[in-house]
Amino acid sequence: MTPQPVRFGLIGTGRIGQVHAASIAADPEATLAWVADPFIEGARATAERYGATATEFAEQVINSGEVDAILIASPTPTHVDLIEASVRAGLPVLCEKPIDLDLARVEALRPLIEASGVPVALGFNRRFDPNHAAAQARVKAGDIGALEQLIIISRDPAAPPAAYIGTSGGIFRDMTIHDFDMARFFLDGIVEVSATGTRTFDPGAREHGDFDTAVVTLRAESGAIVTIVNSRHSAVGYDQRIEAFGSQGMLQVGNPQLNTVVLSNAHAVEARPPYPEFFLERYAEAYSAELREFVKLVRGEASTSPTFDDGRAALILADAAQRAAETGATIAAAL
Amino acid sequence: MTPQPVRFGLIGTGRIGQVHAASIAADPEATLAWVADPFIEGARATAERYGATATEFAEQVINSGEVDAILIASPTPTHVDLIEASVRAGLPVLCEKPIDLDLARVEALRPLIEASGVPVALGFNRRFDPNHAAAQARVKAGDIGALEQLIIISRDPAAPPAAYIGTSGGIFRDMTIHDFDMARFFLDGIVEVSATGTRTFDPGAREHGDFDTAVVTLRAESGAIVTIVNSRHSAVGYDQRIEAFGSQGMLQVGNPQLNTVVLSNAHAVEARPPYPEFFLERYAEAYSAELREFVKLVRGEASTSPTFDDGRAALILADAAQRAAETGATIAAAL
Amino acid sequence: MTPQPVRFGLIGTGRIGQVHAASIAADPEATLAWVADPFIEGARATAERYGATATEFAEQVINSGEVDAILIASPTPTHVDLIEASVRAGLPVLCEKPIDLDLARVEALRPLIEASGVPVALGFNRRFDPNHAAAQARVKAGDIGALEQLIIISRDPAAPPAAYIGTSGGIFRDMTIHDFDMARFFLDGIVEVSATGTRTFDPGAREHGDFDTAVVTLRAESGAIVTIVNSRHSAVGYDQRIEAFGSQGMLQVGNPQLNTVVLSNAHAVEARPPYPEFFLERYAEAYSAELREFVKLVRGEASTSPTFDDGRAALILADAAQRAAETGATIAAAL
Amino acid sequence: MTPQPVRFGLIGTGRIGQVHAASIAADPEATLAWVADPFIEGARATAERYGATATEFAEQVINSGEVDAILIASPTPTHVDLIEASVRAGLPVLCEKPIDLDLARVEALRPLIEASGVPVALGFNRRFDPNHAAAQARVKAGDIGALEQLIIISRDPAAPPAAYIGTSGGIFRDMTIHDFDMARFFLDGIVEVSATGTRTFDPGAREHGDFDTAVVTLRAESGAIVTIVNSRHSAVGYDQRIEAFGSQGMLQVGNPQLNTVVLSNAHAVEARPPYPEFFLERYAEAYSAELREFVKLVRGEASTSPTFDDGRAALILADAAQRAAETGATIAAAL
Repeated sequence: MTPQPVRFGLIGTGRIGQVHAASIAADPEATLAWVADPFIEGARATAERYGATATEFAEQVINSGEVDAILIASPTPTHVDLIEASVRAGLPVLCEKPIDLDLARVEALRPLIEASGVPVALGFNRRFDPNHAAAQARVKAGDIGALEQLIIISRDPAAPPAAYIGTSGGIFRDMTIHDFDMARFFLDGIVEVSATGTRTFDPGAREHGDFDTAVVTLRAESGAIVTIVNSRHSAVGYDQRIEAFGSQGMLQVGNPQLNTVVLSNAHAVEARPPYPEFFLERYAEAYSAELREFVKLVRGEASTSPTFDDGRAALILADAAQRAAETGATIAAAL
Repeated sequence: MTPQPVRFGLIGTGRIGQVHAASIAADPEATLAWVADPFIEGARATAERYGATATEFAEQVINSGEVDAILIASPTPTHVDLIEASVRAGLPVLCEKPIDLDLARVEALRPLIEASGVPVALGFNRRFDPNHAAAQARVKAGDIGALEQLIIISRDPAAPPAAYIGTSGGIFRDMTIHDFDMARFFLDGIVEVSATGTRTFDPGAREHGDFDTAVVTLRAESGAIVTIVNSRHSAVGYDQRIEAFGSQGMLQVGNPQLNTVVLSNAHAVEARPPYPEFFLERYAEAYSAELREFVKLVRGEASTSPTFDDGRAALILADAAQRAAETGATIAAAL
Repeated sequence: MTPQPVRFGLIGTGRIGQVHAASIAADPEATLAWVADPFIEGARATAERYGATATEFAEQVINSGEVDAILIASPTPTHVDLIEASVRAGLPVLCEKPIDLDLARVEALRPLIEASGVPVALGFNRRFDPNHAAAQARVKAGDIGALEQLIIISRDPAAPPAAYIGTSGGIFRDMTIHDFDMARFFLDGIVEVSATGTRTFDPGAREHGDFDTAVVTLRAESGAIVTIVNSRHSAVGYDQRIEAFGSQGMLQVGNPQLNTVVLSNAHAVEARPPYPEFFLERYAEAYSAELREFVKLVRGEASTSPTFDDGRAALILADAAQRAAETGATIAAAL
Repeated sequence: MTPQPVRFGLIGTGRIGQVHAASIAADPEATLAWVADPFIEGARATAERYGATATEFAEQVINSGEVDAILIASPTPTHVDLIEASVRAGLPVLCEKPIDLDLARVEALRPLIEASGVPVALGFNRRFDPNHAAAQARVKAGDIGALEQLIIISRDPAAPPAAYIGTSGGIFRDMTIHDFDMARFFLDGIVEVSATGTRTFDPGAREHGDFDTAVVTLRAESGAIVTIVNSRHSAVGYDQRIEAFGSQGMLQVGNPQLNTVVLSNAHAVEARPPYPEFFLERYAEAYSAELREFVKLVRGEASTSPTFDDGRAALILADAAQRAAETGATIAAAL
């Protein structure tokens, strides 16, 4: 007998909420039951499109008795409270990253989650990207021997508005946090963080004392070293690459191509078209796969991954990187 | 006001019929209303899956009054009759290639189609592949100047069963027919065909007097020359590439990669994983795009492409290639 | 004891003669002793540069008693006589391709060469290109199983002057002849030739009834098929690629890159600089390796390759291609 | 009138001395006049090969009155004294890197060099690599706008013997020193150094307290950040890549390929042969170009580059990186 589709309550119907709504609709094993957004027009439009019920109030979704799981896609400051309410209601949660910008709030929530046994999965969607996932699986399978160096290059196409920078928690908590999780996806036992940040082109970064260009180095107990290279802009388009160097070989994850056409002429040869613009295109498949995996989790067919503790660890590394970049000191990371 | 979805009658629920059924289901502007297959269990399973009605008889679908368009995915010998019946019923048709193995039957059907004004589209799905389509659009846009040479490499992963070879009409009508259409997609005015075929590895080809390896050369009025290189097998996987060489540059369409991961070690560097296995994977997006375009056609929002005459032209070229390969002579093509 | 350097007599000090003079000078096991050119200033300049003796008369070089081998780099119509004179003098010969444009003259010379036992090597330098040579060695080693298809793409950067076209013997004897030899380098037993030629852009080709664009198909006894694609111009630069497709895999020889730098920006990504301009750059290493191999041959440390008969075979294929292109018929090749 | 070849005195006839001897011999504008090596058999063999005079004593070369320039390829601890003696003799010097492992000795020598006006060039040969040089020229030409990030990946094929590690001055002074110079080749105004080093695989590194794996971050006044990634071994072969990321694009320098052949089969596609083994192959052209440029310098036709001060700056950065890696602190660099 085919199981009933998992009924989702979606909180937040902004850009990323729309991505998840579409993923839910596309998965025959999931259905969108409720959506909440204080911007009620957004909630209603989404509800109408997918045959769900709309409300302004997240609590109403959680307490509706008509949802099997909660997907939190609302602004970061609301995450902790919404996770708590969902967990108390016994509802598995898939929460967008980061859990919160304040590690203290994360730590305060942690005992409840551990005690509850309710699965809380973090939206580090890149783990589900077919390219990154294939590379990680091959590293874990030993295809390159012992992992010794990991280089993660992560550059956004363009800096966000200055106002966003002001509330983002800074580049390390906002942008690098994905790369911290990616580092931990490939490599266990990170113990030390150093970082260099500069502001060279973005007025928003300058205004808010943030960095627009950053390099982070992580040291693992094994002696492996991770290098993360970030920029808030990239004329080349969204640039997301990984190089895993091991004792017996190297795996590199390149940027996906828009298509397989290459142009040669008198000026240049074998030129490819620009990369897909941004994360919604680049990680479309990753979002879908993340949702499918979460559905399995809700059904007890998969274990939680990435976990609340993965979200916490990434935040600890982000905090450490911030401190390292500000002081020039290498910071021990207690994960 | 959103228009009602186009109601499809699908004739044939084999492998390729399944592909179209799924495309119809995935397109919000299309719906599967009826399916017909003499193998009634197949028809019923498909009907049940997509909420359609099943029958053994294609005529019942065409005359149901409940369909807006017919999609013909039944065996080749049935195509002509089914097109005729559909056209007489005033129903737009999307018919899998080839129209028929016998050019005389195609010619006999042609006046009816021209007189009827009912759109008949041929299933040369590769025109809708994002890679081929992007290259063709850039050629038409003049990105490489005047097109002078076109190389189409097309190799299947493995030869089909000997029994299939026997009914296939031969490699030129069965396999190269796609490449003939691709040649005409890029280039007008083909006037001459020469061909070389050999049988080197496939017992089925030997048994039925077919070729397993073939090269076809087409000459266009403009002086442009097309080279088609075919093989019934490929250890490398499904191999579908195009090189368009023009007076000012060159566009090449490569095989899509399974993912963007490359492996380097002591034996080889920058090695990529094998290509996606076969046409269902490689041309998945092409099938969907073909269906979406046909829906537009049914609604009068697009013109027919590729047309019945495109199907006829490809068959004329296939016949000519067969004769050229058998006699060693260059054959004039009257398209 | 180190052997004495081989003393070369160089006949012809034009562009290609200069290449050979430099190769001789660069090889510690070779030395340039005599040079001949009716354009005596050219001969003298070359002689002075490399410490050789100059003359107008090739015979004087051959009869000087001061040379161990003859390198013929004079115009094609002089080749047969110079080979004959050298062989009669017992001097090993390295002769630029083609032997002659007239097969009858080649056949007439053949018995003398066979009877003499004097090594006559033909200047099909591409066999010594490290890229082509590596691919051929791997094909011969069985890396791709049985060779089934060979695609040779060969395009010159720009058409030669119309006057040259008039004396060239036509594209097949002048340009494709290299590709015929390359085909035979990879594959034995060619038995049939078909060809299509057009004139689309070059006034010189039009003026002299030559083709500027051509495709040749060769069939081998084994069932393997060779495709040669030629153009007299290429906006992309000198374009020389090979694809060897076998029962178990495929080897492709790409164009060498000017350097390893790739540029990505908002318009295109991973764009490489244009290819090296023409054969002197592309095949510089091939010319040197050819000379080194010939020195070994003179010393009895290597066997002749490519031979006079290789030169003859390429000419037979060129003649057949010319006839095939003119008549549309497939021509049997009696090599 | 052609100028006389520059007469070289070569000090040191070990592996790198041989490279320079060959470069001198291959350059028509240079000649090897004297060679010195305490291992007199080595000196004699080299002298005989190239028609030079041999001695055990470097002073004898410098004072011979028969040399126009000195090339120092002896062990590092001898460099400072030999530079001093050459400069006092008024002889231009090309000295292998590093000047010395002890910055104090370098500083002590500096005033003499500045006062003398005698050109002293440092053997940072990678600046002359056609790939790196082309990329740098394009960065300087503004092809990627303002340089914001530079990633230098530099991995040796295999760790040197433990005994060598003990005298090498450590990975930063021995290996990274090339990368420090490369960073300065692309980017001015480096002001800060941080570094992470680990020992994960090399017993020699463990024995001598050195690192076998290292990452260095350099900050420039402009806000640009340089990342250097080093390993003492690489299963992939010698791995030397650069990525220059700017406000308007990105230039990447890849590893040169052994040849242009790629293999595809059922296991992997488009696989390339392993990279050239080590620096003598990879940088062969760079060594030749370096020598040719130095000859121009001796003749007053070029300015010194890289200079003694470039050698000093690289050593300062190496010292800073060593301290940074040992303490975890970010170190200000006073260049």
